[in-house]
Amino acid sequence: MYTNDAVIRPRYSETDQMGVIYNGYYYMWFEVGRSEFFRSLGYAYKQLEQEGIILPLTESSCKYYKPAMYDEEVLIRTSVDYLKGIRLGFKYEVLRKEDGELLAEGKTLHAFVDSNLKPIRYKMLSENFRAILDKLREDQPGL
Amino acid sequence: MYTNDAVIRPRYSETDQMGVIYNGYYYMWFEVGRSEFFRSLGYAYKQLEQEGIILPLTESSCKYYKPAMYDEEVLIRTSVDYLKGIRLGFKYEVLRKEDGELLAEGKTLHAFVDSNLKPIRYKMLSENFRAILDKLREDQPGL
Amino acid sequence: MYTNDAVIRPRYSETDQMGVIYNGYYYMWFEVGRSEFFRSLGYAYKQLEQEGIILPLTESSCKYYKPAMYDEEVLIRTSVDYLKGIRLGFKYEVLRKEDGELLAEGKTLHAFVDSNLKPIRYKMLSENFRAILDKLREDQPGL
Amino acid sequence: MYTNDAVIRPRYSETDQMGVIYNGYYYMWFEVGRSEFFRSLGYAYKQLEQEGIILPLTESSCKYYKPAMYDEEVLIRTSVDYLKGIRLGFKYEVLRKEDGELLAEGKTLHAFVDSNLKPIRYKMLSENFRAILDKLREDQPGL
Repeated sequence: MYTNDAVIRPRYSETDQMGVIYNGYYYMWFEVGRSEFFRSLGYAYKQLEQEGIILPLTESSCKYYKPAMYDEEVLIRTSVDYLKGIRLGFKYEVLRKEDGELLAEGKTLHAFVDSNLKPIRYKMLSENFRAILDKLREDQPGL
Repeated sequence: MYTNDAVIRPRYSETDQMGVIYNGYYYMWFEVGRSEFFRSLGYAYKQLEQEGIILPLTESSCKYYKPAMYDEEVLIRTSVDYLKGIRLGFKYEVLRKEDGELLAEGKTLHAFVDSNLKPIRYKMLSENFRAILDKLREDQPGL
Repeated sequence: MYTNDAVIRPRYSETDQMGVIYNGYYYMWFEVGRSEFFRSLGYAYKQLEQEGIILPLTESSCKYYKPAMYDEEVLIRTSVDYLKGIRLGFKYEVLRKEDGELLAEGKTLHAFVDSNLKPIRYKMLSENFRAILDKLREDQPGL
Repeated sequence: MYTNDAVIRPRYSETDQMGVIYNGYYYMWFEVGRSEFFRSLGYAYKQLEQEGIILPLTESSCKYYKPAMYDEEVLIRTSVDYLKGIRLGFKYEVLRKEDGELLAEGKTLHAFVDSNLKPIRYKMLSENFRAILDKLREDQPGL
C-alpha cells in the first residue's frame, strides 16, 4: 500500500486550554496529509481544481489515542483506502515523529464534483489524473 | 430525548475557496453545541473544568449532506446518545435555520478525566453534575 | 457616531494553552463585528459580494489590554472611522459583556475591489450601497 | 540584523471564499515565524513556558500587499525590532517563496509575564534566555 508522510509542527494557535492540540485541528492536518499525498504522486490538488474538479468531503472521522502537543512534530501518514467510481477515501495515521507513537487515526471520504458541487462522471477526470488513480489501483489490488 | 439548539451564523473566516464552509469547522460548531447543551441543563462546561474535570474527545465523526454557507444561520441540535461510566457521547444535527434542511450530522465520544488527562472514577464527579447526568438518564431510558 | 454591537461567546477552540483566547481570533471576531455592522444598516455583506464587489483588508491591527476568556461573552462594538473614495476603515472595541471592561481595540482598513481583486471606481458600487455610505457620512461629519 | 526564515505552505483550511488566504491566518503564521526564530537561536519557546514565563501579545498589526494563495509556499522572515526591559517586539515579512515578492508585513509586541499573566522583572528570566537576548542586542546595536 502506497503511503506518504507529511511532517507537521503543531502551532500554538492549535492548542487549547487543556494544554493539548484541539480536536478539530486534526482535520486540518488530514487535509495537509491529503495535499502532500497528491503532490507525492506528481499531481498537486491545485491542478485538479484548475481543471474544474473539486473533492469535497462526504464523511470524516477521527479516533484520538494520545494528545498531540505544541511544537512536538507529528507525521501524517496518508493512504487511499477506498476508490470506486467517483468516490475516494483516505486513511490517516497521526504519529509522534520522535518515537513513532500512534496519537490518532482518521478517515475522510470524498466525491469528485464540478465547481457547482454537481457529481461528475469518471470520464470527466483528466487523463493525467486517471493515470494516477490507475497506478494506485495497481499498487493496492484491494481498492 | 432531550435536545438543545444552538444558533450559529457561519463566519467568513470559516469559508474556503470552494465557496462553502470548510469541513473542519463543523467540529468547532459541535463544541459550541455541546457547550450550550450543558448550559441549557444549568451546568456550564466551565464549571466542570473548575472542579478539575475535563472532557476530551476519544472519537469524532461527521457526515456532510449539503454545504453550509457564509452568513446563512444554522442550528446545532445536540443530544446525548451514550452514557456509561465515565464515557459520554453526543449526537449533533446541523440544520439550516431558514428551512430546517439537514446539512450534516455528527458524533463525539468523550471520557471524563482529571487535569492530568487521567481517567477518573464516576464518584469523583460533583454531586451537582451527577444529578444532571441522572436527569438525562431518566429522560432517555435507553442511555 | 453610529456603532453596532455584536455578541460573541468565545469558543473552546479559540483558547490556547495560556488559558486565554488566542490573539489571532480577535481578527475573526472583528470580521463578525463588520458583518453585523453591515446587517444593522440593512445591507448584508453577502449582498455586496453578490454584486461582484469584495472588500479585502489592506491593513489590520489590535491592541490587547486584558485577555478574553472561554465562555465569557464579549461585545464587538464596531464603527466606521475612515471613508474616502474606495477605502473604508473600521474600528472595533472588544468589551467584556458582563461589566463593560475594555479588553482590546482594533482597526481594519479595506479597499473595494472586483472579484479579480482589481480596484473599482466608486460609481461601480450599487445605488443602494452608496446610499448606506452616504448615510454614514451624514451621521459622522468627520468621515 | 539577525533574521530567520520559516517556510509555510498555505493550507486549504486557511483559504476563504475570495479564493485567497484569509487575513486572520497571517497572525497564526507570525506565531510560527516567532517560534522558529527562537528555535534558530537554540531556545525553543516551549522551554520558556516550562520555566514559567509566557509571552502574550500586547499589540499586533499587518499590512497586506498581495494575497497569499493556497499551496504556494511563503517565507515568514522574522526579526526582533524592539527589546527594552520586559517588552519584546517582532517584525515579520511574508515573502512568496518562488520569487521573493513581498506579500505582507507585520509586527507583534509582547510582554514577558508569569503564568498568572503578571509582569515579571528582567532578572526572573533564566540566565540562558538572557544570554540569547544579550546576543540579539550585540547583533543589533539599535535595540
